[in-house]
Amino acid sequence: MKQFIFSISLLLSAMTMNGAVKVSKVEPANWFVGMKNPSLQLMVYGKDIKNADVKVNYNGVKVDSVVRLDSPNYLLVYLNVGGAKAGEMPLKFFTGKSSVTIKYQLKNRAMEGDKRYGFSNSDVLYMLMPDRFASGKNISKPLKGMNKYVVDRTMPSLRHGGDIAGIRQHLDYFNQLGVTALWFTPVLENNSPDNNGFSTYHGYATTDYYRVDPRFGTNDEYKALIDDAHKHGLKVVMDMIFNHCGFEHPWVADIPSADWFNTPDWLKEKKLDGRNPMTGFGAKDGKSKYLQTSYKLTPVLDPYASKIDLHETVDGWFVPSMPDLNQHNPHVIKYLIQNSEWWIETVGIDGIRMDTYPYADRNAMSLWMKTIDNEYPNFNTVGETWVTEPAYTAAWQKDSKLSTVNSYLKTVMDFSFYDKINQAKNEETDDWWKGLNRIYGSFCYDYLYQNPSNVMAFIENHDTDRFLGNGKDTLALKQALSILLTVNRIPQLYYGTEVLMNGTKEKTDGNVRKDFPGGFAGDSHNAFTAEGRSMDENAMFNWVSKLLHWRQNNEVVTKGKQIQFVPFKGVYVIARQYGGKTVLTILNGTTNDVLMPVSRYAEVIGSNSSAKDVVTGNSVDISKDIKLQPRQSMIIEF
Amino acid sequence: MKQFIFSISLLLSAMTMNGAVKVSKVEPANWFVGMKNPSLQLMVYGKDIKNADVKVNYNGVKVDSVVRLDSPNYLLVYLNVGGAKAGEMPLKFFTGKSSVTIKYQLKNRAMEGDKRYGFSNSDVLYMLMPDRFASGKNISKPLKGMNKYVVDRTMPSLRHGGDIAGIRQHLDYFNQLGVTALWFTPVLENNSPDNNGFSTYHGYATTDYYRVDPRFGTNDEYKALIDDAHKHGLKVVMDMIFNHCGFEHPWVADIPSADWFNTPDWLKEKKLDGRNPMTGFGAKDGKSKYLQTSYKLTPVLDPYASKIDLHETVDGWFVPSMPDLNQHNPHVIKYLIQNSEWWIETVGIDGIRMDTYPYADRNAMSLWMKTIDNEYPNFNTVGETWVTEPAYTAAWQKDSKLSTVNSYLKTVMDFSFYDKINQAKNEETDDWWKGLNRIYGSFCYDYLYQNPSNVMAFIENHDTDRFLGNGKDTLALKQALSILLTVNRIPQLYYGTEVLMNGTKEKTDGNVRKDFPGGFAGDSHNAFTAEGRSMDENAMFNWVSKLLHWRQNNEVVTKGKQIQFVPFKGVYVIARQYGGKTVLTILNGTTNDVLMPVSRYAEVIGSNSSAKDVVTGNSVDISKDIKLQPRQSMIIEF
Repeated sequence: MKQFIFSISLLLSAMTMNGAVKVSKVEPANWFVGMKNPSLQLMVYGKDIKNADVKVNYNGVKVDSVVRLDSPNYLLVYLNVGGAKAGEMPLKFFTGKSSVTIKYQLKNRAMEGDKRYGFSNSDVLYMLMPDRFASGKNISKPLKGMNKYVVDRTMPSLRHGGDIAGIRQHLDYFNQLGVTALWFTPVLENNSPDNNGFSTYHGYATTDYYRVDPRFGTNDEYKALIDDAHKHGLKVVMDMIFNHCGFEHPWVADIPSADWFNTPDWLKEKKLDGRNPMTGFGAKDGKSKYLQTSYKLTPVLDPYASKIDLHETVDGWFVPSMPDLNQHNPHVIKYLIQNSEWWIETVGIDGIRMDTYPYADRNAMSLWMKTIDNEYPNFNTVGETWVTEPAYTAAWQKDSKLSTVNSYLKTVMDFSFYDKINQAKNEETDDWWKGLNRIYGSFCYDYLYQNPSNVMAFIENHDTDRFLGNGKDTLALKQALSILLTVNRIPQLYYGTEVLMNGTKEKTDGNVRKDFPGGFAGDSHNAFTAEGRSMDENAMFNWVSKLLHWRQNNEVVTKGKQIQFVPFKGVYVIARQYGGKTVLTILNGTTNDVLMPVSRYAEVIGSNSSAKDVVTGNSVDISKDIKLQPRQSMIIEF
Repeated sequence: MKQFIFSISLLLSAMTMNGAVKVSKVEPANWFVGMKNPSLQLMVYGKDIKNADVKVNYNGVKVDSVVRLDSPNYLLVYLNVGGAKAGEMPLKFFTGKSSVTIKYQLKNRAMEGDKRYGFSNSDVLYMLMPDRFASGKNISKPLKGMNKYVVDRTMPSLRHGGDIAGIRQHLDYFNQLGVTALWFTPVLENNSPDNNGFSTYHGYATTDYYRVDPRFGTNDEYKALIDDAHKHGLKVVMDMIFNHCGFEHPWVADIPSADWFNTPDWLKEKKLDGRNPMTGFGAKDGKSKYLQTSYKLTPVLDPYASKIDLHETVDGWFVPSMPDLNQHNPHVIKYLIQNSEWWIETVGIDGIRMDTYPYADRNAMSLWMKTIDNEYPNFNTVGETWVTEPAYTAAWQKDSKLSTVNSYLKTVMDFSFYDKINQAKNEETDDWWKGLNRIYGSFCYDYLYQNPSNVMAFIENHDTDRFLGNGKDTLALKQALSILLTVNRIPQLYYGTEVLMNGTKEKTDGNVRKDFPGGFAGDSHNAFTAEGRSMDENAMFNWVSKLLHWRQNNEVVTKGKQIQFVPFKGVYVIARQYGGKTVLTILNGTTNDVLMPVSRYAEVIGSNSSAKDVVTGNSVDISKDIKLQPRQSMIIEF
C-alpha cells in the first residue's frame, strides 16, 4: 500500500516541461473518482502561473472556471470530474508562447463514502500527543528542510521526539487498556521555528496541509499506522485546524489574495519584527496592526452581537504566529474541505477533531460539515467548542433548535462536564450546590442537545490541568471516570490518566503534556507494561482497563435509557437500562461512611436482590441498604 | 358598580329551602355567558349533598355530569352553559324525599375576552405587598370571623395593617413615579393563624379562592381599586397560587377526595401536632408522614429524572402549613382555572402572576394557560420560575423549543438577570468574567427564549435581599436600573426601590418587606411626597421617575433592535435602535475614570455627533471620546 500515496516529488517528475510556464506544485496532489460531489478545485503553484490558461481532454472532464488571484504565482482551476475514470488526467497549462502538461492522478476510492463509519458512543477515545507519547525512530538530528528541529526533553515547550512509529509500536497497549479509538493532536507539517516563546510540537501551526510532519513520519507511515490500528480494532481520529495555519506556511511568504487571511495588514509585514509571538506586541516601531481574537466566543451566537465584537472574535488571530484563514472566501473553504476529504480517502481516518471550531467562519464551517455529511453520512466529526455553558455548546450540534445556522456538526465537546467534574472533585456532595450535585445539575440540561449520545465528554485534555492536578487523589479520579464511562456520552480519555499522570498548566503547558513513561529511549520507568508500572499505577491501570473492556459492546451503556437521582445523603446514583439489564453507577460524594437506602431506588432496582460489581466481580446484596465507604465509586449490574 | 359582585351571603339568601337537602355554598358564586368554553364546573358545598341529584331548566343548559367525591359534603356539577342568556338560572338539588332550588346568577361579560390586553414590555410593573405598603382604613381590631388578626408593626412577621384602600389612596404616586402596572402579593383570604413561626401577611396561604381577605378589604373594594387604577392609566396584575392553599382552607377540615391533595397522609391528621410549621418536623410521636418538596426544580425538565425525584419536587409540600393541591386531578385544575377566569371577568385584572410555577403539575398548568390563552388571547401571565439558568426558565415560555410540553405561559421571570446583577454590583467590570460582563454574558443566551421581549426582569423582589443590601450604593443601583429599563425585557420594580429602601433576609424576610414610609398612621417619615423625602431619596426618586416617564410609549426601547458590545475597558454599552432613533445605555463598570472610544461604537453612532442625556437633558458630544466618571451610568438618545 505504500505506492498508494504519490508524493509531491513524484508528481513533479511526471510533468512535461515546455518553455516558460512553470508548475511547481498542485494541491491536492491527486483526487478520487466516484465522489458524490464532482467539483474539484486545483490550487496550482508556479512562478507567474496566474497568466496561464488550462485545457483538459479526459473522460469528459470540464474546466468549470479558472480563478486568478492577486499573487502571480497561483492559479485556481475548478474542474468537473463527474463520470471520470481512474487514471492519469493530462492537464495542459499554457500561455501564448509556452505550455506545460502534467499528468494528474485520479484514483479509485478505497470504499464508498457511506461505508466509512465514524466513532460513536460505543467507542472510548484515547487522546495523545505524538511528540510526547512514544518515539519509534528516536530521531534527534535535524531533518532535511526541517532545520529548526530541536529535540530537548528537558524543555517542556520544545520537541521531545515522539513519532508515528512510536504510536504504532503500542497498539497492543491500547488493546490491553481497552480503548477503541485514538485521537492524536495534529500530525501535519509544522515547519515553524520552536523558539522565542512559540512551540510547534503540539502541531497546531500547519505549514503544509497535505504532508505529515517529517519529524512524526511520512504520509505513508501515517496510513500504515491507521491500517494497523484498524487491524487492532482501533479507530483513528485526525485533528484538523481550519481556523489558522502556521506563520511559515507558503501562503504567508506569497499571499494568494488580499482576502486569503483575515485582518492581513500585519501579515503583509511578513515578519514578527521583534514582537512576542504569543501577544503580537513589542514591535520595534512600537505600533502594531495586529488584531488578536478576543477569545470571547459569545458574539458568534449572541442575537444582539455587535459587528465589531463578532469581527474581533472570528477575524482576530488566535496567536500572532498563526495567521487567521478567511473561510468566508469560497476558495479558501473549498481548499480546506477538499483537504479533509483527501485525508479521509487517502489514509482512511475514522473521524475528525476540528480545532477552535467557533473561531472560524460559521457559515463556511457549516458548508464544510454539510459537504462531509453528504459524502460520508456515517462519518463523525467532533468540534472543539470551549464554552462551559451547555446552552452554548448545544447550539453547535447538528440540527440544533438553538441555532439559526445548522452546523451539521454531529459531535460537540462537553466542556460543561469537564468544568463541573473538576470543581466537584474538591467538594463534598452533601452541600446542595456542590460536589456531584454539579454533575447531576449539568446532565439535567441535556434537553438542550439535539443528540446527547453524540456529545463527547472528558475530564482533562492537552489544554487543561490534569484531573489529578499535582496530586494523586485516585478516589476522585475513579468517581470522575465512573461517570464518564457509564453516562449518555462519547467518553474521551487523555493519555496517561490510566497510570496517574498528573500536572498543572501553572508554569507551562508542558506539565500537562509530559512524556509517557517508557515511550522514549533511556526511560527508566516503563508504564506500558505491568512489570514497569508501580503498584499504584497498576492498580489504576487495571481498574480503568477492567471498566473499558466491560464497556466494549455494552448496549446498556450505549443504548440504555438513563435515569439519574438527585444526590441523596451525598450519594449520586445514575442508572442505565436496556433489554432488561440495569447498570447502576453509585458514588459517595462525601468523606463519610454512608448507608444508601435501596428503597429510594426501587424504580430501577425492582425485585432484584443481587448485583455484580463490574470491577471486582463481587456479588452485591441490593435487597438491603448498601454501605458505602467515604468517596467510594461502585458500578454494579443486574 | 358595587352591586356587580354578589357575595356568598346574598347567594344563600336566594336559595329556597325545602326539606333535608342543604346547599351551604356554590363556587363560583356566579358565572358569565358568552365564554368561548361553555363548560362550567360548580363546586357545591352542603351537608350530605353528595347524595343529591340536580336538574336545570334554563335556556337549554345541560347537566354534562355530576361527580360525587369521597366526602359526603361536596357535589361537583358540570354544566354546559353555551348559548345561555344572562339571568337567574334555577338549579334544583334533590334526593328521593327533598329538594332545594337555588337561583344561580349568569352575568353578561364586561367585554369580549380578546379585548382584555395584558401587560407587556411597554409597561413597567411595580410590585408591592398590600400589608406593607399603606393602610387606608387603619383597622387594628380583630374582624368578625378573622379573630386571628394581630396588627403589630414592631414584628417583622406579623401583619402591619396595610390594605387595598391604602393602595388606592396612592394611585397618583404611581403616576408621579411613572410606572404603568401594579402587581401586589396575593389579596385573597388567608385566615390561618399568624403564630408559631408561620405568617400569612404575605398572602400565599389561601383559605378562600373567591374572597378578598377582609383585612385588605372586600371584593368590591378590590374591583373599585382596579377601576380607579385603570382611570390612572395603571394596569393591575393579580398574584395567584395554584400549587397550594392554606392549612385553614375548608378543604382541609373536610377533604373532598383522597386525591384532592398530594401526599395527603399527613394532612389527614389535620393538625400540626406540635410540629414546626416551616419544617414539618417535631411531631409529638417523633414520626412524620410529611413530605416536603425538595425545592429541586431540575427533575421537572430533566430528561433523565427519576420518578421519586419528580414526585418529591411537585408532590411535596412547599411548607407544612400549605397543603399541596393535586392539579393532576381534573376537578382540582378545573376549579382553579375557573377561579382565574372569574377574577378576570369580575374585577378586570390585566394580568396574572403565578406563584411557584414549576412546583405544580406541568400538564395541568399547561391546560390552564392554554384555556386562558384561548379565552383571552391578548392577556398576559407571568410565572415564577426561580432557577438562575436561562436554559431552565426559557423552557417554560410559551412555544419553547426546549420543552416537550408547551406551557402556553407567555412571560417567565429572568432570575438569571436578577442573580447576575446582584453579583455584578460588587465587582469590577474590567475583570473578564465579573461585573457587568456577567450581564453581557447573560443576554447572549437570549436565543434560548422563544420571545425575549416577553421575559420579565427585576433586580429584587419580596423573596430576595434588597438590591441595596444594608447599604445605600446608589451608583450600583442606577447601573442596574439603567439596564433594567432599557433592555429587551418587561421591567419589574419592587416598592420602595425608588426611595432607597434597603434590607436583607439574613434575620427575617420582614427586613426586605418593610413598611413604605408614610403609608401608615403616625409615620413621621413620608416618602410619598417630595417634601417628606430626604435629599437622597428625592435624588433617586427623581432619577427613576425621569427614566420611567421617558420610557413610556418609547418605541425605541420596546420595539428597537438590541445591539450589545462586549465590555471594553470596563465599559458596557447596549444600543437600541428603531425608526432612525438610537438609545445608548453606557455603564462604566469600574471605579476608574474611563475614556470611552466612540470609534468602537461607530456601527450604532453613525454620523451623529450630538446626543441628549435622557436624565439630565444635557447635550453630549459623541463626535469625540466620552469621559466617564467611576461607575457612571449614562443613557443617551439621538
